[in-house]
Amino acid sequence: MWTATEDVLPYIAIGAGILGTGGGGNPYVGQLRAREAIRKWGPVNVLSPDELPEDARVICVGGIGAPTVGVEKVRDLQSYHALRAIEDFVGEPATVLISNEIGGSNSVEPLIAAAKAGLPVVDADGMGRAFPEFQMKTFFVYGVPCCPMAVADEKGNSIIVRDTISPVWAERLARAATIQMGCVACYAVAPMTPEQVKRTAVPNTLSLARDLGLAVQTARDSGGDPLQAILETCPGRILFTGKVVDVDRRTTSGFARGSLTIDGIDSWQDSAMTIDFQNENLVARVDGEIVCTVPDLICAVTTDTGEPVTTELMRYGLRVAILGFPAPALWSTPEGLDVAGPRGFGYDTEYIPLEV
Amino acid sequence: MWTATEDVLPYIAIGAGILGTGGGGNPYVGQLRAREAIRKWGPVNVLSPDELPEDARVICVGGIGAPTVGVEKVRDLQSYHALRAIEDFVGEPATVLISNEIGGSNSVEPLIAAAKAGLPVVDADGMGRAFPEFQMKTFFVYGVPCCPMAVADEKGNSIIVRDTISPVWAERLARAATIQMGCVACYAVAPMTPEQVKRTAVPNTLSLARDLGLAVQTARDSGGDPLQAILETCPGRILFTGKVVDVDRRTTSGFARGSLTIDGIDSWQDSAMTIDFQNENLVARVDGEIVCTVPDLICAVTTDTGEPVTTELMRYGLRVAILGFPAPALWSTPEGLDVAGPRGFGYDTEYIPLEV
Repeated sequence: MWTATEDVLPYIAIGAGILGTGGGGNPYVGQLRAREAIRKWGPVNVLSPDELPEDARVICVGGIGAPTVGVEKVRDLQSYHALRAIEDFVGEPATVLISNEIGGSNSVEPLIAAAKAGLPVVDADGMGRAFPEFQMKTFFVYGVPCCPMAVADEKGNSIIVRDTISPVWAERLARAATIQMGCVACYAVAPMTPEQVKRTAVPNTLSLARDLGLAVQTARDSGGDPLQAILETCPGRILFTGKVVDVDRRTTSGFARGSLTIDGIDSWQDSAMTIDFQNENLVARVDGEIVCTVPDLICAVTTDTGEPVTTELMRYGLRVAILGFPAPALWSTPEGLDVAGPRGFGYDTEYIPLEV
Repeated sequence: MWTATEDVLPYIAIGAGILGTGGGGNPYVGQLRAREAIRKWGPVNVLSPDELPEDARVICVGGIGAPTVGVEKVRDLQSYHALRAIEDFVGEPATVLISNEIGGSNSVEPLIAAAKAGLPVVDADGMGRAFPEFQMKTFFVYGVPCCPMAVADEKGNSIIVRDTISPVWAERLARAATIQMGCVACYAVAPMTPEQVKRTAVPNTLSLARDLGLAVQTARDSGGDPLQAILETCPGRILFTGKVVDVDRRTTSGFARGSLTIDGIDSWQDSAMTIDFQNENLVARVDGEIVCTVPDLICAVTTDTGEPVTTELMRYGLRVAILGFPAPALWSTPEGLDVAGPRGFGYDTEYIPLEV
């Protein structure tokens, strides 16, 4: 067990920004919200999955919507409202919270609800990265029911997605409600057992986010190389380095969708990378050739400070390094790839695992 | 008490087609579905509001969606599924069902769910006509909570709109789910007490629909004038008679929206009527001058047989009489007009009650 205090939030923000692959909600906004919650209601204990009590009821909470909207329409306590709504629906309270995805502000969304509710969180999540759609969670890939789940907004509206014929239908219905709610909402899913968490969650990812951020900050403070620090903490490689020359971004159907183009520098001089995104970076190509796809992680950080650049803040002129990291093992199975491989996003291409 | 048998369904279909002011779902499709349910599970008892037992729990069920879609994607037992979903959510079963609106197939939607569930229905509804939006019910105008309510589709998906800050928000969230469900779904609202039904429902409207249909059929069979028979059963007047020369109809945002134009015949020779509709007929103008608006009823029937013509079947060449009927008294109060008067639909015009 460790304790998520105000002090570790800046590290988590950097690490979750990297692991978010462009999405998961703006990490800086998430950090400010979590800081506010911890200042108000106290720090939050973080249990490792092995430390979960046998009778734990673990509720997954998260944000849903378009990150482009989330930076302007900042969330408040929607995840806490969604938590209370689903507890009320199932008739039993949560004893532990878990992150839906470790990327971006979703890494700390459970800390906010947990601080308010006086609960611990478990050091794990349902993606080991960020993905744009609700059904794209290792929990659901490996048999945890996706319903009932609650969606709540900041105004006082809430719905329960009670029963669906597939996890994709839960996404459709929750997304439709989210769009009505202003493209920014939070959700909470019916409780999981400790067995389900241990079997289906990606473990130790809040620690990983924290460690990544600490490594970056230490490198910055000591005049070291932040990119090197990232790759030493989390095995991966630099896919490309260059200057962002175009961002084509639309907020549509409840997502931020589009693509960006990067002109190469250093060893990528005279090459260009394009990245397609749907909240998160999905497919990276160099001169038209695919070099990395989901579920592997495609992460943009600034070349000088290793600062993650999320989809909604990506802009012309930024000097970025595009890092690739292999997906958590739970995603590289046939079941995992069905949901979150290239074909899960409509790309007619095989998944070729990134080599590092 | 009377009993809704297979025999009365054709009369209800005609009467509810008239009272539906163009909407409420196709009455013929509703009739076939109700006939099937009654053949399978038996006829349904119809209680007058005064006959409701003191401890009755009255659940309102209805269809939601665009009638243009409803004629192609015919409903099945969605209203029964929605009923079970809301019973499950509130933790108590219904003892009586009530129609959300007496127009179109929604007049018989409770008969279908009631036949399957073995329950009676009450002879009343929440509009005394049809309106396109969920919040446009006398129940909610006069203080019955609009939530929780359940929305269910034919596939096995269901949501609960748990809590909203206003009835309009319940409409927004239920409509968004309905669109995902294929623009055709059914809903059920948490139980009402007998006191709430007696105070806020429009009474005796299922009988009225039946009587209207019987009068029309009798006139047809005896060589009488069906239009005269309608106006003798339900006080109103003929606003216009003519030939439909244009129908501009789009299925959009979960509604059938548009307008139609009728060239006058008989005493309306050289005049033209236009009618705006959103599932239901909202505003009728003759040569640009408003002659009737919501909440008063604007109803199209064929000139020869008095057959109601609903929005989704309106077409070039039909000879129609446009009938006007005064709105039920519950709609002509300031509270009622706020919700379902011309301004409730975005028209910048006062409501001028129809004189008959």
